[in-house]
Amino acid sequence: MSIEKTVTDIARAAKKAAPAVAACPGGKKNDALMAIADKLQKEADHIKKENRKDLEAAEKAGLSGAMIDRLTVSDSTIESMASGLMEVAALPDPVGAKSASWKRPNGLEVCRMRIPLGVIGIIYESRPNVTVDAAGLCLKAGNAVILRGGSEAIHSNRALARIIGHALAEAGLPETAVQVVPVTDREAVTHLLAQEEYIDLIIPRGGEGLIRFVVQHSSIPVLKHYKGVCHVYVDSSADIEMAENICFNAKVQRPGVCNAMETMLVHRDAAPKFLPGMADRFRSAGVRLKGCAETVKLIQGTEPASEEDWYAEYLDLVLAVRVVESMDDAMAHIAKYGSSHTEAIVTSDYSRAMKFLSQVDSSVVLVNASTRFNDGGQLGLGAEIGISTSKLHAFGPMGLEELTTTKFIVLGNGQVRE
Amino acid sequence: MSIEKTVTDIARAAKKAAPAVAACPGGKKNDALMAIADKLQKEADHIKKENRKDLEAAEKAGLSGAMIDRLTVSDSTIESMASGLMEVAALPDPVGAKSASWKRPNGLEVCRMRIPLGVIGIIYESRPNVTVDAAGLCLKAGNAVILRGGSEAIHSNRALARIIGHALAEAGLPETAVQVVPVTDREAVTHLLAQEEYIDLIIPRGGEGLIRFVVQHSSIPVLKHYKGVCHVYVDSSADIEMAENICFNAKVQRPGVCNAMETMLVHRDAAPKFLPGMADRFRSAGVRLKGCAETVKLIQGTEPASEEDWYAEYLDLVLAVRVVESMDDAMAHIAKYGSSHTEAIVTSDYSRAMKFLSQVDSSVVLVNASTRFNDGGQLGLGAEIGISTSKLHAFGPMGLEELTTTKFIVLGNGQVRE
Repeated sequence: MSIEKTVTDIARAAKKAAPAVAACPGGKKNDALMAIADKLQKEADHIKKENRKDLEAAEKAGLSGAMIDRLTVSDSTIESMASGLMEVAALPDPVGAKSASWKRPNGLEVCRMRIPLGVIGIIYESRPNVTVDAAGLCLKAGNAVILRGGSEAIHSNRALARIIGHALAEAGLPETAVQVVPVTDREAVTHLLAQEEYIDLIIPRGGEGLIRFVVQHSSIPVLKHYKGVCHVYVDSSADIEMAENICFNAKVQRPGVCNAMETMLVHRDAAPKFLPGMADRFRSAGVRLKGCAETVKLIQGTEPASEEDWYAEYLDLVLAVRVVESMDDAMAHIAKYGSSHTEAIVTSDYSRAMKFLSQVDSSVVLVNASTRFNDGGQLGLGAEIGISTSKLHAFGPMGLEELTTTKFIVLGNGQVRE
Repeated sequence: MSIEKTVTDIARAAKKAAPAVAACPGGKKNDALMAIADKLQKEADHIKKENRKDLEAAEKAGLSGAMIDRLTVSDSTIESMASGLMEVAALPDPVGAKSASWKRPNGLEVCRMRIPLGVIGIIYESRPNVTVDAAGLCLKAGNAVILRGGSEAIHSNRALARIIGHALAEAGLPETAVQVVPVTDREAVTHLLAQEEYIDLIIPRGGEGLIRFVVQHSSIPVLKHYKGVCHVYVDSSADIEMAENICFNAKVQRPGVCNAMETMLVHRDAAPKFLPGMADRFRSAGVRLKGCAETVKLIQGTEPASEEDWYAEYLDLVLAVRVVESMDDAMAHIAKYGSSHTEAIVTSDYSRAMKFLSQVDSSVVLVNASTRFNDGGQLGLGAEIGISTSKLHAFGPMGLEELTTTKFIVLGNGQVRE
């Protein structure tokens, strides 16, 4: 069978399965999620055995330790997949919720009802836990899902998909509500991105290269996240101790993630009292600093930053530091070099806080809090499927609601249009 | 200058103008809209003169009477453009509105704030009034806009753009907040669709060919409307007189638009008492009927419908009629042949009404009302920029809110992530 036919068949089967998932009551969806969690734990040995095939191939292929680490499915990985599913089951069902209704002068009553999107395609790189996390969120939101993980994880992903399929069948849902593309050839991705007739949304998760490839080749709408070049701006009126704690947390608590701070902007008036102490604290945590000329003057031994540093997403213990003349300069810097992901201001000035909140064009804008809070769970949306840095449909963390849409419901008693 | 450079320069200028439009207070946006309305009326002679160049070229090129009709800008067209702008000015400003906020256990206060999308590209066919209508809605929603109308309307559109630009400048907004692509070559569209860096959303308005072209070539998100194959299902429990009025209105009141009924589905038990009278009424209005075998038996002289008729968007006084065994059969017909646009049920049965509303997967679903109500104005959204039949971002009529998005606002007092 050709790769194109394999992919088209999968997409068609997903479309066929979608109405049953969409119409499935919340309680039954939760039962299915619990059944998957249960089966994953019971089949732990099988999953680990299949995962070992991927790990052996990865070692032979000479993949890096970090890649192999992300690929590894251990008992604790399985435990956390299962507990993730149980958390999703505990969230409220988004499907069927109606907005407040409004009445038209002719007596028509109108409201919006939340409905599933239909079929969602997820294209991701090596972590096999994405297979389970994404399947759980998509199902809970009433959607069928097609998963296309990295070729390195193919045995693990197929094993997980089989287990999920069995659990779905037992719970009375179509097995094809969750499918893994069994082909590792990259051609499969191109075919998947052409299934506009059957797939409603594509979510790529991975590096910028993967995401650009998907956007270029997809005729299906894509929710994407390019990168997180996040800023904290320390205002002249900032509480210095608060600013230190927030900047330290934003850079150091988990430097490898998209909501970590990459550039720190400091108002000229705050710089002399703030930067030296902050620099000591960063250095004691192993953070390498790259600064503007003014920063280099204030912190001995700082490397000079180049133009590229202002665009950099280091994802590491490296920080670019710039002294600015004003909040307007800080906002201009963010507009030029930022990625619309997450920006924070530390200030005690009310009007600056309000201006920063309203004018900074990022998915999450914070006053006096760490950028690390841009996360579905932290903001109270429940589990998230990613963070969108494009503005259509979803901007910022995407929870269950972002995996749905709304239709209009109109109640009449014989109205016709004049 | 190459077409690519012309288009890229326009897109870049729009992106540069966008923050000024986004930050513009509602009152000032309304002043700008009123200034445009005023200038259009004052410059009516100039607009009509430029329009005559398009009309002469159209006549030479042998365009159809209907096309020339749509292309013509008369005093009353200008009047209605101006009054449309005034109506948009009277709508509430969507930008800056905040959702109810919620408090996290750590004390963070979170809400969503409505913000403009940025730069919107509209690609449309001949009607010059779209130039003004779309510009007004995009501006009111705080966006910069790039307009690419049909080549037949190029002189009219350039004249309108010049007038809009002057009015914007007088109102203190950048002239480049509204731009018309001055190139008629289709290559300009391809280049426009590649400006992912500068344009946030593309809305094509026109025939299915144009829309498919745009979807295939765009790396920018597209809000699209393929076609409206709308159904009315007359249930066995329907009030026959109500069903007649609704079906008549849905088909006859304005047959050439996307929310007109194209197929009427009739429950077997209602067919004998409903169809003959309904058929008389349709025929007296000149409606040509094409029916299933059962319909042909009940209404003498009905043409037999072919499989293609169930997919057809006639946009004319033609109607496909099918007798069904049950509401489930009606819903299965809609799922197979429909276009997710608008479906209505006429029934007096509560549980069937509820089931139809929740299970029919269309952007607007109505009980006991005409399909013709799928319209932003009729549903109370104010003016609309189109009707989306795809589910992402907007599903159904798109008003001002659908030309915006939301970001998260987080208010803290020093919170860091554990």
